[in-house]
Amino acid sequence: MRPSGRKLDEMRPVSVDVGFTKHAEGSALIKVGDTHVLCTATIEDRVPPFIKGSGLGWVTAEYGMLPRATNTRMRREAAAGKQGGRTVEIQRLIGRSLRAGVDRVALGERQITVDCDVLQADGGTRCASITGGWIALRLAVNKLMKAGDVISDPLVPVAAVSCGIYAGQPVLDLDYPEDSEAGVDGNFIMTGTGQLIEVQMSAEGSTYSRAQMDQLMDLAEKGVGELVAVQNTATA
Amino acid sequence: MRPSGRKLDEMRPVSVDVGFTKHAEGSALIKVGDTHVLCTATIEDRVPPFIKGSGLGWVTAEYGMLPRATNTRMRREAAAGKQGGRTVEIQRLIGRSLRAGVDRVALGERQITVDCDVLQADGGTRCASITGGWIALRLAVNKLMKAGDVISDPLVPVAAVSCGIYAGQPVLDLDYPEDSEAGVDGNFIMTGTGQLIEVQMSAEGSTYSRAQMDQLMDLAEKGVGELVAVQNTATA
Amino acid sequence: MRPSGRKLDEMRPVSVDVGFTKHAEGSALIKVGDTHVLCTATIEDRVPPFIKGSGLGWVTAEYGMLPRATNTRMRREAAAGKQGGRTVEIQRLIGRSLRAGVDRVALGERQITVDCDVLQADGGTRCASITGGWIALRLAVNKLMKAGDVISDPLVPVAAVSCGIYAGQPVLDLDYPEDSEAGVDGNFIMTGTGQLIEVQMSAEGSTYSRAQMDQLMDLAEKGVGELVAVQNTATA
Amino acid sequence: MRPSGRKLDEMRPVSVDVGFTKHAEGSALIKVGDTHVLCTATIEDRVPPFIKGSGLGWVTAEYGMLPRATNTRMRREAAAGKQGGRTVEIQRLIGRSLRAGVDRVALGERQITVDCDVLQADGGTRCASITGGWIALRLAVNKLMKAGDVISDPLVPVAAVSCGIYAGQPVLDLDYPEDSEAGVDGNFIMTGTGQLIEVQMSAEGSTYSRAQMDQLMDLAEKGVGELVAVQNTATA
Amino acid sequence: MRPSGRKLDEMRPVSVDVGFTKHAEGSALIKVGDTHVLCTATIEDRVPPFIKGSGLGWVTAEYGMLPRATNTRMRREAAAGKQGGRTVEIQRLIGRSLRAGVDRVALGERQITVDCDVLQADGGTRCASITGGWIALRLAVNKLMKAGDVISDPLVPVAAVSCGIYAGQPVLDLDYPEDSEAGVDGNFIMTGTGQLIEVQMSAEGSTYSRAQMDQLMDLAEKGVGELVAVQNTATA
Amino acid sequence: MRPSGRKLDEMRPVSVDVGFTKHAEGSALIKVGDTHVLCTATIEDRVPPFIKGSGLGWVTAEYGMLPRATNTRMRREAAAGKQGGRTVEIQRLIGRSLRAGVDRVALGERQITVDCDVLQADGGTRCASITGGWIALRLAVNKLMKAGDVISDPLVPVAAVSCGIYAGQPVLDLDYPEDSEAGVDGNFIMTGTGQLIEVQMSAEGSTYSRAQMDQLMDLAEKGVGELVAVQNTATA
Repeated sequence: MRPSGRKLDEMRPVSVDVGFTKHAEGSALIKVGDTHVLCTATIEDRVPPFIKGSGLGWVTAEYGMLPRATNTRMRREAAAGKQGGRTVEIQRLIGRSLRAGVDRVALGERQITVDCDVLQADGGTRCASITGGWIALRLAVNKLMKAGDVISDPLVPVAAVSCGIYAGQPVLDLDYPEDSEAGVDGNFIMTGTGQLIEVQMSAEGSTYSRAQMDQLMDLAEKGVGELVAVQNTATA
Repeated sequence: MRPSGRKLDEMRPVSVDVGFTKHAEGSALIKVGDTHVLCTATIEDRVPPFIKGSGLGWVTAEYGMLPRATNTRMRREAAAGKQGGRTVEIQRLIGRSLRAGVDRVALGERQITVDCDVLQADGGTRCASITGGWIALRLAVNKLMKAGDVISDPLVPVAAVSCGIYAGQPVLDLDYPEDSEAGVDGNFIMTGTGQLIEVQMSAEGSTYSRAQMDQLMDLAEKGVGELVAVQNTATA
Repeated sequence: MRPSGRKLDEMRPVSVDVGFTKHAEGSALIKVGDTHVLCTATIEDRVPPFIKGSGLGWVTAEYGMLPRATNTRMRREAAAGKQGGRTVEIQRLIGRSLRAGVDRVALGERQITVDCDVLQADGGTRCASITGGWIALRLAVNKLMKAGDVISDPLVPVAAVSCGIYAGQPVLDLDYPEDSEAGVDGNFIMTGTGQLIEVQMSAEGSTYSRAQMDQLMDLAEKGVGELVAVQNTATA
Repeated sequence: MRPSGRKLDEMRPVSVDVGFTKHAEGSALIKVGDTHVLCTATIEDRVPPFIKGSGLGWVTAEYGMLPRATNTRMRREAAAGKQGGRTVEIQRLIGRSLRAGVDRVALGERQITVDCDVLQADGGTRCASITGGWIALRLAVNKLMKAGDVISDPLVPVAAVSCGIYAGQPVLDLDYPEDSEAGVDGNFIMTGTGQLIEVQMSAEGSTYSRAQMDQLMDLAEKGVGELVAVQNTATA
Repeated sequence: MRPSGRKLDEMRPVSVDVGFTKHAEGSALIKVGDTHVLCTATIEDRVPPFIKGSGLGWVTAEYGMLPRATNTRMRREAAAGKQGGRTVEIQRLIGRSLRAGVDRVALGERQITVDCDVLQADGGTRCASITGGWIALRLAVNKLMKAGDVISDPLVPVAAVSCGIYAGQPVLDLDYPEDSEAGVDGNFIMTGTGQLIEVQMSAEGSTYSRAQMDQLMDLAEKGVGELVAVQNTATA
Repeated sequence: MRPSGRKLDEMRPVSVDVGFTKHAEGSALIKVGDTHVLCTATIEDRVPPFIKGSGLGWVTAEYGMLPRATNTRMRREAAAGKQGGRTVEIQRLIGRSLRAGVDRVALGERQITVDCDVLQADGGTRCASITGGWIALRLAVNKLMKAGDVISDPLVPVAAVSCGIYAGQPVLDLDYPEDSEAGVDGNFIMTGTGQLIEVQMSAEGSTYSRAQMDQLMDLAEKGVGELVAVQNTATA
């Protein structure tokens, strides 16, 4: 029933290429099916003004998409002169999600910026960004711990997956053909132990029941479990 | 236990002043406790390019906050030269939520823009904007129906309420003192019959369980029910 | 002869609702006929760099109009990405006018920002903003004086009224139907004792004589006198 | 008493170099003392959308200042990414003033853009721009009349002069040292026959009486008379 | 003598991964040493207004750098709200260079946009962009020719290499450590037959003689010859 | 053969009017044929952050064109809200070129900003800006030397000329009619002793050989020699 022939609760194949670029303190190219996102983590000693002197760390994120990551070319945001609403919304979500898995006292007063740039898009770019961004963050924190700059591990695993109602059925990990048809879809961001960090489930021109919401949550738990396993392997 | 002395499942008093400004096709000043939002609905014959000629209608929203709606003065976005990420995120949510309650065929090829401007803020401005924005929309559509421009009613009621975990307890309709302390909070947008349109539940530096999510959903159902009753009275 | 049936030298009814919003140090909703402006005054300890350390205070103003304050919806300036020329011109005028009635030594090294946001427009919004903005400023300064932060009263009353030549006749306090037809119109900003602060009288596609200018000045003196009486009552 | 040694009612020397640049339909470098403004007029067949098909013409203006026209270098507005409030206010005044002297029916459905760029500033740049801009406009219209594109002369002379109260005395045509000290100053824009087009008289931290306003008007009439004579000679 | 141990006339290893992303009509990841650029070519039927209806084609380019392509993180241009001067200069060069190798009549009235996004930078990104961008362009044109939309091949090979004077010696293909030290460096863009398209040779705080210019040209001819061989192999 | 009747190696007449404006530390109006550029040099004590405390000086440049410097009116960049790509490219070239002729140690830790504003354009504005900008710089440095703030002369002469291939022939100093037709053209920036600072030679839809490049270099040497003579006379 799904365009890709996948089962309702089946994720796309996921692979991770760590160290894809050399300058960043952490970097990974994550591929969730045909969605490819390059994630890098940058450590800086400065923190935003509102936590200066607090001893707390900060994690933030930025998101971008190359103009021809998509089927038709999109206008470059730098040329347009501003980040679109969708971009801003996504990068706020990525930052918020990653921060929820960080012990900011243990991180210490420093900032890590996670850049997620979509090289190729096929649905689910924000979830792939969170899952891959966490890997870049993990690698950067490992460097801090190896150097003795951070003593106690400040991270718990964070991963994200999309779910939705496609052709009347709850499905896991929507690809673009599904995403563009689904009347209801959203994202679940969770920790490795199944605690919720963020749920965003929207209907466009449609609605859904609590029973359906529960089915989607079940799918999300399964998907996040698989993603956390991939994260563990990649950063072992 | 709540700073306001309210019970865990008790909303703030809600009042609506319809026709607060005279030019708009629909207007209402909604007060949810000390959060006051002026909502206006503007009918235009043009529609966005992507639905031109489709016969379908469109509903969109914009959101703003007066500089001194808050406890300390915020910079005016027009002076800053752009809408902040929070503003863009909120107005996209309002538009999406209202559209979910609109039969776009019945509305016909026209656009209704709902402007939500916060005159005074005390937490929950986006939910008040959706609830009040729907009233302005209702009044504007009534005008179209009275004029015979729209024959079959294209609207079902849409309302929104915030919930969160404050001091370890699930609470309904957070005011600003609660909102600024809550580690978990979010918004539930629902129809008058209890169908879900959008769920957004985020944790900042914290997480929550599925059991807690269920408790919040119960609160949200209660709150939206009360808000829809207010909407019905105000637009009767 | 006037669309509203008013006499040539008759102002629209003026009312003031002080304390309309709760966060600002001073706030007032002024209604001059169907022109409604929400004015708030914010006290801050910082001053602009060019007077730092001088011991002098500063008063500045910002102006905005809600998108549907007018008969047809105007584009939101925050969305357009800049304040239009008209907005900038008006807010500079408001700031200059209010400053002329302030003893900046007596005010002390602090800044008061007066925000004037038009909720509903029917001509004369800049004059209503000055008159109402002064009330918000008065209330904020009262707070400073009550707290002993300011000893000697730094304010003299400032109010503004528009005049113009409509259908060949000099008229006081133009509403929108008059304003859009008048070939000559402008604004008089004066103190409570009838001293001039600013005169702006422009013709668009027309001219006027010195004799006509004198007639308009007479009207303005009458109007400002009435406005100052309203200010006194509102802030008593 | 005046820093320049001029009498209270004495203007600075005024000279005009017509045809200073070759591409524009009309061009003039006007020098009012040490204030030098290059004015060009451009004729285009298109008009703004709001008068398309009306048969009426349009005159508009833009104003700029070279970065080192002033004593200390100012930031280039193109580099800053926007025109400042002062620039916008001035160019709106120039456009409005020139239009008041144009019979838009006689001009026919075309637009003339007058650019006023200050090469060197010493006070009174907006007045010099109006006076010199009118000369550029006159030359461009002469070209249209010579070509038979315009039959009846659409122009009456328009000129502008500043006046103010300096050291307690009313003075004509303020230069920069006077302008930066005067508590009251403004601009009078008039036709060649002494009719008023625009009066802008502001006090900054000061006020003035109607009697003083009358004295300034007398000075302005004298000054504009002299400027119109210079315009006539330059364009003869 | 060179930091990398290369000979004066030795290029870095060059590799090309064609079809790196799937949506674009042509795509290639080019690696010139540690400089990695993702190039995509997009075919569109529309052309810029100035050649509409001329029957001629157009090739244009855009350039970007991921924030952490460099040793320290650079601000994202989309977030900064504009493309920097360096970016604009580079993308104009890429477009001009590629166009010089295109028979615009044979291409037909269509536009090809070449996007060059630097994933990792180590000097020479603009030259790698031109060389890799030509490959993406070649692949896209091949598609047009296979489909019969273009009959006669409109392309001649175009490649680019940097040269400079490092530690007093002329060197080929500067990497970042050389580039940041060289007082004289620049770029040579040439066709496969050794004709020049563009020469840009700048000194910063230094100068060079015609004899040195000749030596650099010799190096450039050698380098471009090698790059064209790589292009041929990659697109065979 | 040339539209102007000039010989292949003949420059346009060049004249310089030093001290054209009074505020700048150095100013000159340079006329190269009908290309007229007003150049000013501003001395400031502050330097860019990256050389603060280094003892080194800095020279930078900005470039602009009045809207009607050209045959048809161009949009004012300040109104457009940004400097176009061409402007940025040119001003970076001017700054780089002038810096190459400056001994930054001898200049001392101060910044000189050279503004080049084109009053009238007829081809070759960037070369005229460099040649005239150097004169303004020379005059400003003379002032510093006379005041004893700079002891040893930090400047060597820098001038620039364009060359190109017009109608198959190499020509010196292209005017606009030649520039708009030439398939190959560029700029040579050199010192007074014939050392090269920057070479930019581009082909648009064409290519050129090394032999042709040599011919253009010969022409450039002749042209720069003549320009340096003019510079010497003007600043003697």
